[in-house]
Amino acid sequence: MRAVVLVRPKTGILDPQGQAVETSLKHLGFAVDEARVGKVIDLELNAEDEAAARTEIERMCEQLLANPLIESYEIELAEAE
Amino acid sequence: MRAVVLVRPKTGILDPQGQAVETSLKHLGFAVDEARVGKVIDLELNAEDEAAARTEIERMCEQLLANPLIESYEIELAEAE
Repeated sequence: MRAVVLVRPKTGILDPQGQAVETSLKHLGFAVDEARVGKVIDLELNAEDEAAARTEIERMCEQLLANPLIESYEIELAEAE
Repeated sequence: MRAVVLVRPKTGILDPQGQAVETSLKHLGFAVDEARVGKVIDLELNAEDEAAARTEIERMCEQLLANPLIESYEIELAEAE
Protein backbone atom coordinates (compact mmCIF):
# COMPACT_ATOMS: atom_id res chain seq x y z
CA MET A 1 0.00 0.00 0.00
CA ARG A 2 1.25 3.46 -0.82
CA ALA A 3 0.88 6.47 1.41
CA VAL A 4 1.82 10.12 1.30
CA VAL A 5 2.58 11.80 4.61
CA LEU A 6 2.77 15.58 4.82
CA VAL A 7 4.66 16.99 7.82
CA ARG A 8 4.38 20.72 8.34
CA PRO A 9 5.48 23.26 10.95
CA LYS A 10 2.45 24.05 13.14
CA THR A 11 0.76 27.43 12.82
CA GLY A 12 2.61 29.95 14.96
CA ILE A 13 5.82 27.94 14.97
CA LEU A 14 8.81 29.76 13.50
CA ASP A 15 9.70 28.37 10.05
CA PRO A 16 13.11 29.74 9.01
CA GLN A 17 13.21 27.68 5.81
CA GLY A 18 9.80 29.02 4.80
CA GLN A 19 10.89 32.57 5.57
CA ALA A 20 14.01 32.12 3.45
CA VAL A 21 11.92 30.80 0.55
CA GLU A 22 9.42 33.65 0.94
CA THR A 23 12.17 36.29 0.95
CA SER A 24 13.91 34.73 -2.07
CA LEU A 25 10.67 34.48 -4.04
CA LYS A 26 9.90 38.15 -3.31
CA HIS A 27 13.41 39.14 -4.41
CA LEU A 28 12.82 37.25 -7.65
CA GLY A 29 9.69 39.38 -8.19
CA PHE A 30 6.96 36.88 -7.34
CA ALA A 31 3.77 38.12 -5.64
CA VAL A 32 3.95 35.80 -2.63
CA ASP A 33 2.38 36.64 0.73
CA GLU A 34 3.57 33.62 2.66
CA ALA A 35 5.59 30.45 2.22
CA ARG A 36 5.88 27.56 4.67
CA VAL A 37 8.12 24.57 4.10
CA GLY A 38 7.59 21.05 5.39
CA LYS A 39 8.34 17.48 4.36
CA VAL A 40 6.55 15.03 2.11
CA ILE A 41 7.28 11.36 2.83
CA ASP A 42 6.20 8.74 0.29
CA LEU A 43 5.85 5.31 1.86
CA GLU A 44 5.34 1.84 0.45
CA LEU A 45 4.19 -0.37 3.31
CA ASN A 46 2.59 -3.72 4.06
CA ALA A 47 -0.74 -3.43 5.85
CA GLU A 48 -3.92 -5.51 5.89
CA ASP A 49 -6.27 -2.65 5.17
CA GLU A 50 -6.52 1.12 5.17
CA ALA A 51 -7.42 1.35 8.85
CA ALA A 52 -4.38 -0.72 9.85
CA ALA A 53 -2.13 1.31 7.54
CA ARG A 54 -3.37 4.59 8.99
CA THR A 55 -2.75 3.38 12.56
CA GLU A 56 0.77 2.25 11.66
CA ILE A 57 1.60 5.53 9.93
CA GLU A 58 0.29 7.51 12.90
CA ARG A 59 2.72 5.55 15.08
CA MET A 60 5.56 6.23 12.59
CA CYS A 61 4.76 9.95 12.74
CA GLU A 62 4.70 10.02 16.54
CA GLN A 63 7.95 8.04 16.83
CA LEU A 64 10.05 9.28 13.93
CA LEU A 65 8.56 11.24 11.06
CA ALA A 66 7.24 14.28 12.91
CA ASN A 67 8.07 16.21 16.04
CA PRO A 68 4.60 16.45 17.61
CA LEU A 69 5.61 19.52 19.61
CA ILE A 70 6.17 21.70 16.59
CA GLU A 71 4.88 19.76 13.55
CA SER A 72 1.52 18.50 12.39
CA TYR A 73 1.01 15.65 9.96
CA GLU A 74 -1.52 14.60 7.36
CA ILE A 75 -1.86 11.08 5.92
CA GLU A 76 -3.15 10.25 2.43
CA LEU A 77 -3.56 6.58 1.51
CA ALA A 78 -3.58 5.11 -1.98
CA GLU A 79 -3.86 1.50 -3.08
CA ALA A 80 -0.63 0.14 -4.59
CA GLU A 81 -0.87 0.13 -8.37
CA MET B 1 -4.86 32.04 -3.55
CA ARG B 2 -3.34 29.14 -1.72
CA ALA B 3 -1.21 26.46 -3.32
CA VAL B 4 0.57 23.32 -2.20
CA VAL B 5 3.75 22.41 -4.07
CA LEU B 6 5.24 18.95 -3.66
CA VAL B 7 8.92 18.60 -4.61
CA ARG B 8 10.26 15.07 -4.74
CA PRO B 9 13.51 13.36 -5.76
CA LYS B 10 12.99 11.91 -9.23
CA THR B 11 12.70 8.14 -9.63
CA GLY B 12 16.17 6.64 -9.82
CA ILE B 13 17.81 9.57 -8.06
CA LEU B 14 19.59 8.67 -4.83
CA ASP B 15 17.62 9.84 -1.80
CA PRO B 16 19.82 9.56 1.31
CA GLN B 17 17.21 11.13 3.58
CA GLY B 18 14.60 8.64 2.39
CA GLN B 19 17.01 5.76 2.91
CA ALA B 20 17.73 6.94 6.45
CA VAL B 21 14.01 7.16 7.20
CA GLU B 22 13.42 3.71 5.68
CA THR B 23 16.22 2.14 7.73
CA SER B 24 15.06 3.81 10.94
CA LEU B 25 11.45 2.73 10.40
CA LYS B 26 12.55 -0.87 9.81
CA HIS B 27 14.66 -0.76 12.98
CA LEU B 28 11.60 0.41 14.87
CA GLY B 29 9.75 -2.66 13.58
CA PHE B 30 7.55 -1.11 10.89
CA ALA B 31 6.76 -3.10 7.72
CA VAL B 32 8.02 -0.51 5.26
CA ASP B 33 9.29 -1.42 1.79
CA GLU B 34 10.35 2.03 0.68
CA ALA B 35 10.48 5.62 1.90
CA ARG B 36 11.27 8.71 -0.14
CA VAL B 37 11.51 12.19 1.33
CA GLY B 38 10.79 15.46 -0.41
CA LYS B 39 9.50 18.93 0.43
CA VAL B 40 6.04 20.38 0.74
CA ILE B 41 5.80 24.14 0.20
CA ASP B 42 2.59 25.94 1.15
CA LEU B 43 2.21 29.22 -0.69
CA GLU B 44 -0.17 32.13 -0.33
CA LEU B 45 0.07 34.18 -3.52
CA ASN B 46 -1.67 36.88 -5.51
CA ALA B 47 -2.81 35.73 -8.93
CA GLU B 48 -5.69 36.67 -11.22
CA ASP B 49 -6.88 33.13 -11.79
CA GLU B 50 -5.83 29.52 -11.50
CA ALA B 51 -4.07 29.43 -14.85
CA ALA B 52 -1.98 32.49 -13.98
CA ALA B 53 -1.18 31.05 -10.54
CA ARG B 54 -0.07 27.76 -12.04
CA THR B 55 2.21 29.51 -14.53
CA GLU B 56 3.75 31.62 -11.76
CA ILE B 57 4.33 28.61 -9.53
CA GLU B 58 5.93 26.68 -12.38
CA ARG B 59 8.36 29.58 -12.79
CA MET B 60 9.05 29.56 -9.00
CA CYS B 61 9.78 25.84 -9.18
CA GLU B 62 12.15 26.21 -12.12
CA GLN B 63 13.96 29.16 -10.54
CA LEU B 64 14.05 28.34 -6.86
CA LEU B 65 11.83 25.66 -5.34
CA ALA B 66 13.04 22.60 -7.22
CA ASN B 67 16.22 21.44 -8.88
CA PRO B 68 14.84 20.28 -12.25
CA LEU B 69 17.82 17.96 -12.78
CA ILE B 70 17.01 15.75 -9.84
CA GLU B 71 13.58 16.78 -8.56
CA SER B 72 10.06 16.70 -9.92
CA TYR B 73 7.24 18.92 -8.70
CA GLU B 74 3.48 18.78 -8.42
CA ILE B 75 1.17 21.79 -7.95
CA GLU B 76 -2.19 21.74 -6.19
CA LEU B 77 -4.25 24.92 -6.16
CA ALA B 78 -6.95 25.87 -3.67
CA GLU B 79 -9.03 29.02 -3.42
CA ALA B 80 -8.16 31.18 -0.40
CA GLU B 81 -10.74 30.68 2.38
